[in-house]
Amino acid sequence: MAYHIEEDAIGPVKVPNDVLWGPQTQRSHENFKIGGRMPYPVIKAILHIKKAAALTNANLGELSQAKADLIVKTVDELLTGKYQDQFPLVVYQTGSGTQTNMNVNEVIAHLAAKIQPDLPLLPNDDINHSQSSNDTFPTAMAIAAFLETVKLLPILKHVKATFDQKAQDYKDVIKIGRTHLQDATPMTVGQEISGWASGIQHNIDYLELNLPTLLELPIGGTAVGTGLNTAPDYDVEVVKKLAELYGVSFVNAPNKFQGMAEHSGLNMVHSVLKTLSADLVKIGNDIRFLASGPRAGYGEFNIPANEPGSSIMPGKVNPTQIEALTMVAATVFGHDATINFAASQGNFEMNVYKPVIIATYLDSVSLLQESIQSWDDKLVAGLTINADRMKALVDQSLMTVTALSPHIGYETSAHIAQKAQKEGTTLREAAIASGKITAADFDKWVVPADMTHPRIK
Amino acid sequence: MAYHIEEDAIGPVKVPNDVLWGPQTQRSHENFKIGGRMPYPVIKAILHIKKAAALTNANLGELSQAKADLIVKTVDELLTGKYQDQFPLVVYQTGSGTQTNMNVNEVIAHLAAKIQPDLPLLPNDDINHSQSSNDTFPTAMAIAAFLETVKLLPILKHVKATFDQKAQDYKDVIKIGRTHLQDATPMTVGQEISGWASGIQHNIDYLELNLPTLLELPIGGTAVGTGLNTAPDYDVEVVKKLAELYGVSFVNAPNKFQGMAEHSGLNMVHSVLKTLSADLVKIGNDIRFLASGPRAGYGEFNIPANEPGSSIMPGKVNPTQIEALTMVAATVFGHDATINFAASQGNFEMNVYKPVIIATYLDSVSLLQESIQSWDDKLVAGLTINADRMKALVDQSLMTVTALSPHIGYETSAHIAQKAQKEGTTLREAAIASGKITAADFDKWVVPADMTHPRIK
Amino acid sequence: MAYHIEEDAIGPVKVPNDVLWGPQTQRSHENFKIGGRMPYPVIKAILHIKKAAALTNANLGELSQAKADLIVKTVDELLTGKYQDQFPLVVYQTGSGTQTNMNVNEVIAHLAAKIQPDLPLLPNDDINHSQSSNDTFPTAMAIAAFLETVKLLPILKHVKATFDQKAQDYKDVIKIGRTHLQDATPMTVGQEISGWASGIQHNIDYLELNLPTLLELPIGGTAVGTGLNTAPDYDVEVVKKLAELYGVSFVNAPNKFQGMAEHSGLNMVHSVLKTLSADLVKIGNDIRFLASGPRAGYGEFNIPANEPGSSIMPGKVNPTQIEALTMVAATVFGHDATINFAASQGNFEMNVYKPVIIATYLDSVSLLQESIQSWDDKLVAGLTINADRMKALVDQSLMTVTALSPHIGYETSAHIAQKAQKEGTTLREAAIASGKITAADFDKWVVPADMTHPRIK
Amino acid sequence: MAYHIEEDAIGPVKVPNDVLWGPQTQRSHENFKIGGRMPYPVIKAILHIKKAAALTNANLGELSQAKADLIVKTVDELLTGKYQDQFPLVVYQTGSGTQTNMNVNEVIAHLAAKIQPDLPLLPNDDINHSQSSNDTFPTAMAIAAFLETVKLLPILKHVKATFDQKAQDYKDVIKIGRTHLQDATPMTVGQEISGWASGIQHNIDYLELNLPTLLELPIGGTAVGTGLNTAPDYDVEVVKKLAELYGVSFVNAPNKFQGMAEHSGLNMVHSVLKTLSADLVKIGNDIRFLASGPRAGYGEFNIPANEPGSSIMPGKVNPTQIEALTMVAATVFGHDATINFAASQGNFEMNVYKPVIIATYLDSVSLLQESIQSWDDKLVAGLTINADRMKALVDQSLMTVTALSPHIGYETSAHIAQKAQKEGTTLREAAIASGKITAADFDKWVVPADMTHPRIK
Repeated sequence: MAYHIEEDAIGPVKVPNDVLWGPQTQRSHENFKIGGRMPYPVIKAILHIKKAAALTNANLGELSQAKADLIVKTVDELLTGKYQDQFPLVVYQTGSGTQTNMNVNEVIAHLAAKIQPDLPLLPNDDINHSQSSNDTFPTAMAIAAFLETVKLLPILKHVKATFDQKAQDYKDVIKIGRTHLQDATPMTVGQEISGWASGIQHNIDYLELNLPTLLELPIGGTAVGTGLNTAPDYDVEVVKKLAELYGVSFVNAPNKFQGMAEHSGLNMVHSVLKTLSADLVKIGNDIRFLASGPRAGYGEFNIPANEPGSSIMPGKVNPTQIEALTMVAATVFGHDATINFAASQGNFEMNVYKPVIIATYLDSVSLLQESIQSWDDKLVAGLTINADRMKALVDQSLMTVTALSPHIGYETSAHIAQKAQKEGTTLREAAIASGKITAADFDKWVVPADMTHPRIK
Repeated sequence: MAYHIEEDAIGPVKVPNDVLWGPQTQRSHENFKIGGRMPYPVIKAILHIKKAAALTNANLGELSQAKADLIVKTVDELLTGKYQDQFPLVVYQTGSGTQTNMNVNEVIAHLAAKIQPDLPLLPNDDINHSQSSNDTFPTAMAIAAFLETVKLLPILKHVKATFDQKAQDYKDVIKIGRTHLQDATPMTVGQEISGWASGIQHNIDYLELNLPTLLELPIGGTAVGTGLNTAPDYDVEVVKKLAELYGVSFVNAPNKFQGMAEHSGLNMVHSVLKTLSADLVKIGNDIRFLASGPRAGYGEFNIPANEPGSSIMPGKVNPTQIEALTMVAATVFGHDATINFAASQGNFEMNVYKPVIIATYLDSVSLLQESIQSWDDKLVAGLTINADRMKALVDQSLMTVTALSPHIGYETSAHIAQKAQKEGTTLREAAIASGKITAADFDKWVVPADMTHPRIK
Repeated sequence: MAYHIEEDAIGPVKVPNDVLWGPQTQRSHENFKIGGRMPYPVIKAILHIKKAAALTNANLGELSQAKADLIVKTVDELLTGKYQDQFPLVVYQTGSGTQTNMNVNEVIAHLAAKIQPDLPLLPNDDINHSQSSNDTFPTAMAIAAFLETVKLLPILKHVKATFDQKAQDYKDVIKIGRTHLQDATPMTVGQEISGWASGIQHNIDYLELNLPTLLELPIGGTAVGTGLNTAPDYDVEVVKKLAELYGVSFVNAPNKFQGMAEHSGLNMVHSVLKTLSADLVKIGNDIRFLASGPRAGYGEFNIPANEPGSSIMPGKVNPTQIEALTMVAATVFGHDATINFAASQGNFEMNVYKPVIIATYLDSVSLLQESIQSWDDKLVAGLTINADRMKALVDQSLMTVTALSPHIGYETSAHIAQKAQKEGTTLREAAIASGKITAADFDKWVVPADMTHPRIK
Repeated sequence: MAYHIEEDAIGPVKVPNDVLWGPQTQRSHENFKIGGRMPYPVIKAILHIKKAAALTNANLGELSQAKADLIVKTVDELLTGKYQDQFPLVVYQTGSGTQTNMNVNEVIAHLAAKIQPDLPLLPNDDINHSQSSNDTFPTAMAIAAFLETVKLLPILKHVKATFDQKAQDYKDVIKIGRTHLQDATPMTVGQEISGWASGIQHNIDYLELNLPTLLELPIGGTAVGTGLNTAPDYDVEVVKKLAELYGVSFVNAPNKFQGMAEHSGLNMVHSVLKTLSADLVKIGNDIRFLASGPRAGYGEFNIPANEPGSSIMPGKVNPTQIEALTMVAATVFGHDATINFAASQGNFEMNVYKPVIIATYLDSVSLLQESIQSWDDKLVAGLTINADRMKALVDQSLMTVTALSPHIGYETSAHIAQKAQKEGTTLREAAIASGKITAADFDKWVVPADMTHPRIK
């Protein structure tokens, strides 16, 4: 491969001729052959920051308008997405993300030189003007995290709506409830599904409540949070510009030292993803157990047959979408441990786990987006019930005995149920045989549908 | 020991004569000899629920006023705290907390029989009237968690205020910043401390934002969430009564099925405690490293000498309060994993990890209360600085070179700093020797105090 | 309360007259009002170390025989367990455990003064002779952890034997297997239970394999691992003495610096407890789902009715022992996160999370001991099967179709099973109706018992 | 794109003409658009299993030799690695890995048809003969995990050797020890480094001890562990064949039910990786703190300057390799939580978190391989010391006072050290001024090199 020599602060570096990056990118590329690439949403956010900084610097008289215009033009070209291979650096690099920031600076400089060769841009002095990796990278983290997480909301609202519709469809179907996995008192299918919908809704609420913490941008702090080498008002103006570019109400971090050295915001919002994932495991398990069978399981629900169930056993419908979903949940649980550990390990004016925090965070977000949407489309939407099976289980149940308790007391009720259980009879037979209650009273008192709500006025 | 025989649904049990509990408590006491007792805040919350339920049931004509009055009187006697040994059951029992609910029912019944022998109360039919363990216990979890967590807020606000005062005290003292653990540009002590204060403030905000989810009470759901066997409006009235008894704006859970089978609320709020703990590790580490020494460490801060540092080495001041605090953080991290796992494992109409969720949650809360208050009082309040040491480190620093960058460019600045480093000189000497800058310009440009903020208009 | 004044390196302290401890214990008692006490197994191990050190020091001419004898006599008196309230210090104290080591030194000194008033012992110079908290405490951690963990082995072997017996009892009973929660090919009850037994056995093996790492004792390292102030061969001799006192083959840590600053051994062995706990969740879930019912669940197994199942619903048998067991597992998972975090946070010659590491470790061990034994005695031992239910499920099953696959091919088999499923018939009816197979062949080929093993030679 | 129609058990599917896969792969490709691909080591292991099964089936008379030969030939062609894009399925698919097993079966069938068009192979009946995804996939998990993890051993041994060499190089250089981050007694640089080397060695030992659990292969269990549809001795023979193909001493899983439904082995060995990672954080932190500076840090060690330290601050050498390494550790901690959760969630005869378990496991292994090797080559190998700085810190130290303790007692020693500290003098000055000790005695007793080991005989 053909190389040329470029130089940085510590000496010359061979850089391939066919790339747009420079010496610092090249060094990092050689020094860190560990794992996969920095997620592209981070690159995009840094590109936007470069644009916002250039415009702000020009307005504040810090950079010539011509240079700012060239930076903007170059960034817009890069944002087309055609140059993604020019950002080859990995997540496991320097913990400040400096090398990725420099990668962006270098690529802008080189591409700008092609666009307008007569106006050379310096990666540090021009493109990184008024910035440090130390404020740029955490700002990009917040932006990328916010923008990607916001996309989860319509997906969650959609699956919530799917459950709402199912709850409505089956609001009058009676089924047996289960506590401790044991038969309990009856309820409607709609009620059971409403609990799942409410679980999703709670997490939508938590997300909407906590997401705004990611709007706080520490940009303008430069190297350690003090704002050294920035123009007056630069921090305020650059955030206004970012808000304008994105149409999102970003604000200045209330304290830049905190914003650069702690990552409480990402830790907090990822905790919502973790809480959501715990609920998804619960809901997913409910559905797959209730759809277990076809002949030797609970058999109350049916799920769509999206694929043959097994390479050796014909005739099985496996809950594969839920399997993918709960595997994602397992990953998110681990990611929460990673992010929390990383967030705890800042020292002084910096936390050097930034790349792993944002890459792990974004992985959770995209896995949740993809798996919830897939689950919604390919399983929840197609969920149907076996009403006959549900009715049969209610009829056989002993747990409707609870309806007797207010009439004949707890102790007597318990004895009747135990007798039915021991002798394999229905509750009705045992109740009448006990002599404590007439058939008429039983039929009046034990009406499963009446057991699915409080007494009516 | 002297016993008498009591009977429950599955047969006779020997109950010691000198206790107030009954057969179900006794069975659990014998069946579960695992770990420590159910935290007392849970017992207190269940006692309040019994009182609120009795009053509500009386108002709704479900229970005689005399019985309700006796329940209230008995509960008030128990709430004096004199009978804590009557609640001997452990956390690792049935996962619904049923046995603890029955323990409370039985103790009330037995104590009431001493207070007013002519008005017998039945544990199930009277004291547990309109209730099930399945709605009572999660309601008690939410109440206990809310009340105990609220107490953390003034403690956090106090340590925040202590940091604010320190930041104010040292707002003009210049010190070296550090990123990647390496020397960076200067800042004030006040700025550094403000970052810690802001870290605390962020967590206060997260707590205030998320705590209201614990106000949702699923009481009235009875066995599976349907409200079976409750009077019309019972659920609404009993929550009003609880709100009144506590003076806290509790609300009805928007969906009782969710409230009984998922524990998203506790998972969410505990995540705040986890996020807070991660920040406490960061802040604690900063302080103990900056106070490291006395002769071979950073030596910038002094911490109070609360005890001899070692059994063999005289003359050491160890950061013991921080060691306790960060050990608490380690525990809270683990507790978050426990609670999240438990929250994910609900099935159908119940989650059977309730006792471990609430006991683990309350352990985090009380450990954080105690350790943060201790840290605040015995270490943060007594934090002082070594201004001379801070000044010496700034004077020796090479990193003030950053102040040159806007004047002579990044590359030249870098070369000067490297020369100083290589030759062991100060930056000033190297800069002047370079011929790129005069002594006068150096002294004008490199003013550490001027490097602690953006340029001034 | 009556006090007297004692003095330590930093000044006078008021010590209550009725205690055996001295000024350093008193300071810690006042400075750390956080959480619960240091587990007693740690105190016992430190007492043994004091005894071993005294005897070794006497042998090496470092301490008079009279003093050594007095220390031994006093320690033996303390080891009776009558003085546990003299060790009031909490887990969340200094991270080296120094205060607990000094607590022991002080209590020995004071009690010795009562036993033999004419031979005063100094806590540091005599009782702590050749020791530092820095080597004493991690040595006590290893000893306590080893001794307590060893007790788990017979408990695990017992429950393994209980499962082996059940597997033997039911080795010929055919039941349906389940994969993806869906009906699968038949197996015997004995086979299913053998999988659980093998799970336990694997963890017994892991424990036996990894436990020896806890035999490595860093005693003799004193303050930083160098062995400063110890006599020649002291380290070797004191470990020999400990091995002799305990009858356990303790060895010298191969590197004392590692043994004092890293806690890989405890992290590693706790990982076995975590792995075991994951398997217990799996096995526990299997049993409680297979015992679900009585009428609307899998209903294959029966578990003992140890208590009434609910405060409102008579007639339920809840899997409460499994609920306690899996709650313990949830706690152990969290404890693993705590220990691993703590183990990662050593700095230089010390890790200051020692108390939380050992307290958390021992909590896992004792919870597992108690819950597994309880589960074994009160549930596994009483496990029985519903052979009729198992047979009925096999007869209805479509999954025996797999037995047809080698004879008529995968595709044809699949179509027959689908037809049976769609039309609600048995597999036999559908197979014969398909015309691809005769009744005789079906009965020859589809023999559930023949499907529970490879073809026979 | 051009398609053709293929059919599977549930109907027709459009399969692109330019791929080698069939209908089941195509369905999965469309149904699961979630996250990244199944790691290639899993595919390779499945290919080897297909080869071993074909050879074994031929030997046992289950498959014609011609078909077996064709399978072997095709597999060998696929193992060249040229066809990796024919395995497009993702990790988040069905939890049994069935779709990946079928992907391999289909690709072999299609490629074989090109190699030898006159001998058609059926994916299920021929290539999957005597197998089920349910035994094939966990067998592939064990094989892939074993082979990849084994590669970590030489990397660990190499970095251990690098540390051993450094320990040897600096075995006589005296430096100050540090406990609680506070100055402690002296030691040699070699001793400190030996602690790190021993940390690595302990983890090598743990790995070698625990790795053999991954040699257990459940192949031959087919659908539920019973071995249905396999020839007599198939399970034994196929494992022998795999052992022969790989030259690795694989064994039959002692219990196939356990081997298919629990994943204790992977959970256990990953725990070693987690324990190792905790130690890497400790060692990495030590090095980066000891190399902190250049002027305002501990400054004892120097690390290689692999890249410019910052985009704005010239003259910094950041510990970037350690930052990458500890970020990997953070990921491994999270991965351990993921794997442990997943391992706990098996049900009955299957655990449906298989793909996420193996993908997460392999990610830890490759990240550790790459980051440890990078850290070793680019940082540890180039580690040097500042002997002057180390000497200066020892000379200023007060902690050499410990050497006085055996001579003049703990209390007197403490007072001298406190006086020196208060008055800013050296210990020597304070000691002599105290009148308790002569200059000659001080120089005889306080010899830092003599404080780095026990007394000499």
